[in-house]
Amino acid sequence: MKIICNQKLLANKVGTVQKGVSNKTTIPILKGILIETIDNKIKLIGNDLELGIETFLDGEIIEEGSIVIDSKLFGDIIRKLPDSFVEITTDTENNVYIKCENSEFKIKGHSSEEYPKLLDVDENRFYEISQNLFKNMIKQTVFAISQDETKPILMGELLEIENNNISLVAIDGYRLAIRSDKIENFIGNSKVIIPGKALNEVNKILSEEGNFKIAFTDKHCLFLIKDTKIITRLLEGEFINYRQLIPREYNLRVQVNTKKLLNSIERASLLAKEGKNNLVKFSIRDDNMIITSNSEIGNVYEEVPILLEGEDLDIAFNSRYFIEALKIIDSEEIYLEFTTNVSPCILKPVDEIEYIYLLLPVRISANA
Amino acid sequence: MKIICNQKLLANKVGTVQKGVSNKTTIPILKGILIETIDNKIKLIGNDLELGIETFLDGEIIEEGSIVIDSKLFGDIIRKLPDSFVEITTDTENNVYIKCENSEFKIKGHSSEEYPKLLDVDENRFYEISQNLFKNMIKQTVFAISQDETKPILMGELLEIENNNISLVAIDGYRLAIRSDKIENFIGNSKVIIPGKALNEVNKILSEEGNFKIAFTDKHCLFLIKDTKIITRLLEGEFINYRQLIPREYNLRVQVNTKKLLNSIERASLLAKEGKNNLVKFSIRDDNMIITSNSEIGNVYEEVPILLEGEDLDIAFNSRYFIEALKIIDSEEIYLEFTTNVSPCILKPVDEIEYIYLLLPVRISANA
Repeated sequence: MKIICNQKLLANKVGTVQKGVSNKTTIPILKGILIETIDNKIKLIGNDLELGIETFLDGEIIEEGSIVIDSKLFGDIIRKLPDSFVEITTDTENNVYIKCENSEFKIKGHSSEEYPKLLDVDENRFYEISQNLFKNMIKQTVFAISQDETKPILMGELLEIENNNISLVAIDGYRLAIRSDKIENFIGNSKVIIPGKALNEVNKILSEEGNFKIAFTDKHCLFLIKDTKIITRLLEGEFINYRQLIPREYNLRVQVNTKKLLNSIERASLLAKEGKNNLVKFSIRDDNMIITSNSEIGNVYEEVPILLEGEDLDIAFNSRYFIEALKIIDSEEIYLEFTTNVSPCILKPVDEIEYIYLLLPVRISANA
Repeated sequence: MKIICNQKLLANKVGTVQKGVSNKTTIPILKGILIETIDNKIKLIGNDLELGIETFLDGEIIEEGSIVIDSKLFGDIIRKLPDSFVEITTDTENNVYIKCENSEFKIKGHSSEEYPKLLDVDENRFYEISQNLFKNMIKQTVFAISQDETKPILMGELLEIENNNISLVAIDGYRLAIRSDKIENFIGNSKVIIPGKALNEVNKILSEEGNFKIAFTDKHCLFLIKDTKIITRLLEGEFINYRQLIPREYNLRVQVNTKKLLNSIERASLLAKEGKNNLVKFSIRDDNMIITSNSEIGNVYEEVPILLEGEDLDIAFNSRYFIEALKIIDSEEIYLEFTTNVSPCILKPVDEIEYIYLLLPVRISANA
């Protein structure tokens, strides 16, 4: 193989496929990136068997071929080269020669024959979605994914496409985040569970403009973002029937400024770190919500102005679960809906965005 | 005590004195910041017994007094408060009440009686130095301080004031960095060893404009930067006679572009990480310096154009020691002076700055 391409472009594309290379793998060839010439283009692949990322770049193909080269070392070299043309050549012993201006590297590569193939997905049956919308959908839900490896299915998100509605759902046993929107749907309904890791990587590759495509097989999901293809294995199993968890009614509803509530809870949580449950208490009365917290070293009292519809309530939460959600809501004001102090609280933006965040309160004794 | 002050100003000043609070201390009161009213000002102190930082801010003193409050918690609270007025009150049981808009904190403090006093240094006999100059002097030497706790004296820098010349010197057994300049000296010569930690903190507090003052006692050094006073213990002992380490003559001198040399060594060092000695080899020939490095996975060859005065030479270095120095030199071009491949190399900027960096080569066998 002998190719010539632009350093900046190559560094950028290597950065993309590196997101698919696991740094924990014990299989030596998976520590590498595949470089291959195909149809007069240069193809790069990173693949950890769960998640594979493929991308293309333009360059001059002087001699066709392919090679696998250590991902970290190759990325570090390309990024450190000057902004100029990079020539990459291989020999019959899988050595890789990288030349750029006054620099010459010779690196041991691996034959591409041993490199696992990326699955071919039928790209004809796909949904087309706004990149910006899907980026927001991920941002507003992915933090609520479970980190508990004993519940692997909750380490992914449910992606539901039903008629012209798309939803992304994350749940970790203490809270539930649902972000929905409208899409054009010409190919029917789908319901899959996508690993959180894949969504995080997709989020990094998505830009704020234009559309991308998404397609499914029984066991895989394909994201097509411009030149870049991301294939991830789906999680197998039944997702929790999340709809039945959402209360239909509420006894009281609070309207509050998102930023003011966030700041008050963040301050209160400074004294809530004892015992790791980050306990903050809300006393909802008329036109104020009193947020308090205490620990051995002291206590805090915060007053946040609200619009209350319904009865008074005393309820307590893990402040972290509130803070994480308030940070990703763009709406200036939110609604909080409560039933009792032992039932879930629902958080919704006041604007038109279809977002529901449900969180469980912490039970506290009457005199706590 | 009862005081009212501006949140932004207080947060800034707390950030300054926090640099003097050790997070490793086992003495509870040293985890605190002293707040004290004095001469109609608010004084803050952080002190770990080696390094003490005192600063003042304006505010309204409603009732005089003093208190010690946990540094981390207090800093976190003040930074999270809204940009408004903060009222701080204490009671007879050393409780601290912090009020700001709709927030109220009650925190257990400590009596200031137990808080160690900062040494009073005679501030009349001081040197006046440009903040920007001293900032640069620290930046260009402090990285060469030893990290080896068995050689405590090398964990500091020698500050030498002789006639109208000021020098800062760091040495770690493998390299030596000296930065000198001119100052006005009305009070005589001084020679002290300042702990590296203190210089790092002073560097953070120095700004790029105006002068500051520096004064010494037998055992302490005082830095006076506007409202802020930093007192550090000096290191005791005899500093290495560094002047005798600097070769008087050289057999060859190379002039090279600083940035090009840095980039080439950085690339070469990507393959030099095996065995942790970061070995890169220089072959100096006519108008080129060839930099090479190799490891099991491959090798690299870099060519850097030079102006050579003198003989050819093959010599090897720990790349890290070169990279750290090249990063802090502002001069576009540098000189490298060599004698033999087992004697120190001297690095000097081509511009007027009085800077000398000496580093020892690594001995390599003839066929390596």
